[in-house]
Amino acid sequence: MNRALPREGLVEAGAYFYPVRVYYEDTDAAGLVYYANYLKFAERARTEMLRRLGIEQEKLREETGTVFVVRRCTIEFFMPARLDDDLVVATRLAHLGGASLELDQEVRREDAVLVGLSLAIAALGRSGRPQRLPAALRAAILSLNNTTNRMAHAR
Amino acid sequence: MNRALPREGLVEAGAYFYPVRVYYEDTDAAGLVYYANYLKFAERARTEMLRRLGIEQEKLREETGTVFVVRRCTIEFFMPARLDDDLVVATRLAHLGGASLELDQEVRREDAVLVGLSLAIAALGRSGRPQRLPAALRAAILSLNNTTNRMAHAR
Amino acid sequence: MNRALPREGLVEAGAYFYPVRVYYEDTDAAGLVYYANYLKFAERARTEMLRRLGIEQEKLREETGTVFVVRRCTIEFFMPARLDDDLVVATRLAHLGGASLELDQEVRREDAVLVGLSLAIAALGRSGRPQRLPAALRAAILSLNNTTNRMAHAR
Amino acid sequence: MNRALPREGLVEAGAYFYPVRVYYEDTDAAGLVYYANYLKFAERARTEMLRRLGIEQEKLREETGTVFVVRRCTIEFFMPARLDDDLVVATRLAHLGGASLELDQEVRREDAVLVGLSLAIAALGRSGRPQRLPAALRAAILSLNNTTNRMAHAR
Repeated sequence: MNRALPREGLVEAGAYFYPVRVYYEDTDAAGLVYYANYLKFAERARTEMLRRLGIEQEKLREETGTVFVVRRCTIEFFMPARLDDDLVVATRLAHLGGASLELDQEVRREDAVLVGLSLAIAALGRSGRPQRLPAALRAAILSLNNTTNRMAHAR
Repeated sequence: MNRALPREGLVEAGAYFYPVRVYYEDTDAAGLVYYANYLKFAERARTEMLRRLGIEQEKLREETGTVFVVRRCTIEFFMPARLDDDLVVATRLAHLGGASLELDQEVRREDAVLVGLSLAIAALGRSGRPQRLPAALRAAILSLNNTTNRMAHAR
Repeated sequence: MNRALPREGLVEAGAYFYPVRVYYEDTDAAGLVYYANYLKFAERARTEMLRRLGIEQEKLREETGTVFVVRRCTIEFFMPARLDDDLVVATRLAHLGGASLELDQEVRREDAVLVGLSLAIAALGRSGRPQRLPAALRAAILSLNNTTNRMAHAR
Repeated sequence: MNRALPREGLVEAGAYFYPVRVYYEDTDAAGLVYYANYLKFAERARTEMLRRLGIEQEKLREETGTVFVVRRCTIEFFMPARLDDDLVVATRLAHLGGASLELDQEVRREDAVLVGLSLAIAALGRSGRPQRLPAALRAAILSLNNTTNRMAHAR
């Protein structure tokens, strides 16, 4: 499916899909993608998802002082990715709180889920303290899909 | 305390302590250590810990076919590290199974714990299936400290 | 122009153009792209250029034993790239030898050249010694553009 | 010799020697150190050399506005480094100008030179324009060794 994915990814069925090609820089001497690099793929996908939803993080920071900070991340490694693999990162909203959100991400190769990530992200204001998510941001994130909760329950 | 730490780290009080200096390569435009890079620091510490315990992973692989694979990793980000920080990674055994082990790691700056990691690691044989840890390896890991469990309970 | 570039880049006017977005992972505490990371961008572009020209490096290695090795690289840093920049890597053939080639690469942001690279690359065979480039490979690389030499002279 | 090198390296015979261990993060699927990562090793060595000479770059920037920027870098790859290698980066002054300096760096494994780097570095002031090197900095760098020029000629 990723053959059809544009550089900037796409939103579909309550999730955001972002394509990642594996290059030498991503691999290690075991011939596989180095374990820390899945976090890079996941962060690229989150950045492009926000951009796709109309949110430029730098602009958001300048205008409202809001920055996003990862508080906790759980990664499960099911199968390794390899050089030249054409991967897809699927991202969906797991929970939206007042000053925080939780995302589930999967790194996939065709129909196989290689790596699963679960992230707790806090919104901080200029003071460094938790800050309520701006309404426009909240609406944008929720627009990701109104079927999100149903999907999460169905897992 | 890391001022006193040698390059190869040291074992003390049931844990292994490994020094890490933060360079430009580790930081990002937020002025902090990029979140994926703590996984690099943690992996360096695990490698040096094994070396310190007399285990060369490459030699182990050649002789017994055993490789270690991270199955699951949970990271909690409490406070950020910055350029030039002189950090210490503390590693201790949380659980030793027949073909797996669990490690707790902390990235510290002086007395503060910046990042906490909890890892489940599997030992695989040449076939790619779980393999019982070789006795010498088991003994080496246990030698890390017989006070480990007591410390874990005391947290 | 990169807005129009597809993920896999395109060949035009004797050069190959490949798009690169700058993410947090690419930047450092100075707020700019870390200097080593331009080499990653350049390698991604070379890999995709070859793929675009019909050459899968892994397949080439299996069938003919040929691998490419960078022997020398000169990088000039004119202006820095920043977070969120949408860059283009332009690659063209500077010289094609019997068992080697030279490439010129530029990292551009709109009309500005930020970084220039000049690489000498050797083809090695299974023995690790220089190996004449297979004819199909030579043809593919030359197909990059027959105006290449003229452009190089015109610089 | 690097077995004897402390974490922070040492100055000897007109050069600064800094130890680097190769971890999985540094390697790629070819089983070798990824070509861009030698630039990381080299930058670590330059940072520690300055620290060793009494110069904290962050403090220098705050007090005098001076920052160092790499303008040009030439890298020659003679032989590859591999996982677990215990390397040494040797750094020496090639030329000291009014607002710039040139450094030669070598990445070595025992007696073999694996990679050679030659860097032109500019000192910039708060305005982003070239700035004369502060006298204390100039003295510190020259203290690296008064035999430097002789050594450079003898190569």
